[in-house]
Amino acid sequence: MSSTVVVGLDVGGTSTRAIAVTLDGERLGVGRAGGGNPTSHGAARAAGELLAALRQALADVDPDRVRAGAIGLAGAGRLLADPAGRTAFDDAWRAAGLRCPYAVHGDALVAYASGAASPAGTILVAGTGAIAARVHELRLDRIADGHGWLLGDIGSGFWLGHQAVRRLLAALDTGGDPDDLGRRVLTRLTGSTEVAARTRDTVDALVQAVTRRPPVELARLAPLVVDAAAAGDPAGAALIGQAGAHLAATVSRIRPAGDTTPLVLGGGLLTGDTPLADAVRAEARRRWPDAPLRLAGDGAAAAAWLAARDLPEVTDPTALHAPIVRPPA
Amino acid sequence: MSSTVVVGLDVGGTSTRAIAVTLDGERLGVGRAGGGNPTSHGAARAAGELLAALRQALADVDPDRVRAGAIGLAGAGRLLADPAGRTAFDDAWRAAGLRCPYAVHGDALVAYASGAASPAGTILVAGTGAIAARVHELRLDRIADGHGWLLGDIGSGFWLGHQAVRRLLAALDTGGDPDDLGRRVLTRLTGSTEVAARTRDTVDALVQAVTRRPPVELARLAPLVVDAAAAGDPAGAALIGQAGAHLAATVSRIRPAGDTTPLVLGGGLLTGDTPLADAVRAEARRRWPDAPLRLAGDGAAAAAWLAARDLPEVTDPTALHAPIVRPPA
Repeated sequence: MSSTVVVGLDVGGTSTRAIAVTLDGERLGVGRAGGGNPTSHGAARAAGELLAALRQALADVDPDRVRAGAIGLAGAGRLLADPAGRTAFDDAWRAAGLRCPYAVHGDALVAYASGAASPAGTILVAGTGAIAARVHELRLDRIADGHGWLLGDIGSGFWLGHQAVRRLLAALDTGGDPDDLGRRVLTRLTGSTEVAARTRDTVDALVQAVTRRPPVELARLAPLVVDAAAAGDPAGAALIGQAGAHLAATVSRIRPAGDTTPLVLGGGLLTGDTPLADAVRAEARRRWPDAPLRLAGDGAAAAAWLAARDLPEVTDPTALHAPIVRPPA
Repeated sequence: MSSTVVVGLDVGGTSTRAIAVTLDGERLGVGRAGGGNPTSHGAARAAGELLAALRQALADVDPDRVRAGAIGLAGAGRLLADPAGRTAFDDAWRAAGLRCPYAVHGDALVAYASGAASPAGTILVAGTGAIAARVHELRLDRIADGHGWLLGDIGSGFWLGHQAVRRLLAALDTGGDPDDLGRRVLTRLTGSTEVAARTRDTVDALVQAVTRRPPVELARLAPLVVDAAAAGDPAGAALIGQAGAHLAATVSRIRPAGDTTPLVLGGGLLTGDTPLADAVRAEARRRWPDAPLRLAGDGAAAAAWLAARDLPEVTDPTALHAPIVRPPA
């Protein structure tokens, strides 16, 4: 049994997760704190959440046993380019009692590694946004989409919510009654399924309900589309099918047809048992019939595995993947 | 020769225009002032611009000769619903020396009347945004789109600019070289046609160039698409064709196939001699082969005509349209 411990962190927009794990895969501690993305929250706050999660994970661990660490976060490149951000993270690392170095990886690489051990493959993440990345020698190589809600995120949760509202507005413009999906959107945004006698009043109310919130919150309507599709609504099913095709097309920008490396699916819209996950799987099987399809799992554990790979005593890093990461089936 | 004078105003986001005209169509004065849309600028400022334009138009006119007036403006319904806004406009009207009443019309109705005298028809306006409206008894009846850049404006200047940037980002994601339209967009947004050695750096620079400005400014890229299409670029031509089809589809939401009433085309993208105007005309001739296609013209004069219609001495208001409005051929 290994006495060597590695630490991994997965820093997301809404939560930060930390894990301390031995090279045998024994979990010595886990920690969870608030959102810590330095791009959206500022490096100082992000570092504070990082420290809180680290302290929980290390509560029962002698920090001197920790020999390597890694942090996965969105906008990793920007953190590394910003001396103040890097210093804030360094200070948090030392404040947790750690003396080993740590690496910083993009969240897409960590999501990939949470589902596959192969050094080459592809990750597709769809949640509020959407991004695909090609992984080469366990580094992010080429990227597709991830352009944000205004210019990209095609097939994402934002896209689904956006399309659902547009369809409803078009139906109201023509004077038609909203369909099942339309009624779900109408109820969420106006509190009622009722259309005003002067239809344009309902149209105006919908537009105002959306535009008085940050646009990205349209992603909150995505579950309505997923639910409508799951309930057999044809409009919901059509939008889900389009989103699946869009996401597969995004992957195709960076992945040749017939590629046989693993394709890892991550993000809230693809890791659950949802119609969109089914749609993406179907598209993927058609374009890459011989590629293993994997689900992203525990990002913090994947970061710990990425850290462990570089230790001198690790001669077969791939063999450590299953015990440390325990990827989903 | 009629001694009766009517006053018309066209209040737009970037300029306010006023005209004083006799029932014979003699132009006694015109005025121009800054943008006066009360929704975007506040009612007090809008009323100030209104007064400035009115005073110029009435410089050589005895205000007692003015027997009727009308104001066309976007968000007319909101102005009428807001007592403070209505009071500000009333005060400006009286400050110009006018004692007759005035009517307030939506800008879409005034745009329609600037191109057609028939009491029933359709107006399609495409500029930064896009909206279509059915006119019935010279009132706005049903409306399609006009939902703003986030949720609508399909086929508008915003839409063209947005699509042009998306196409460029997709091309860069795949590792391809930008085409003619892509190079135009790249140059406008980054100052150079050069793609960085690490393509993602150019992608990030483009996304940042767009997202640090208000989204609606994507409409400023529309002329690049129009120019590319006019120069024979296939991508530009394809986008223009799609925009034309989208705009015709918007009209179809409120106008039955085969309708023979006039269809008036307004807005900067449709009143010039542009490929988009050609595309919309082609779509319109296909869907409504027997409908007269007209161009929107002088909105202030059209407002004056709408005002004149209700005067007791006017027995044939349609006959006044040509002399007062002088619609484009």
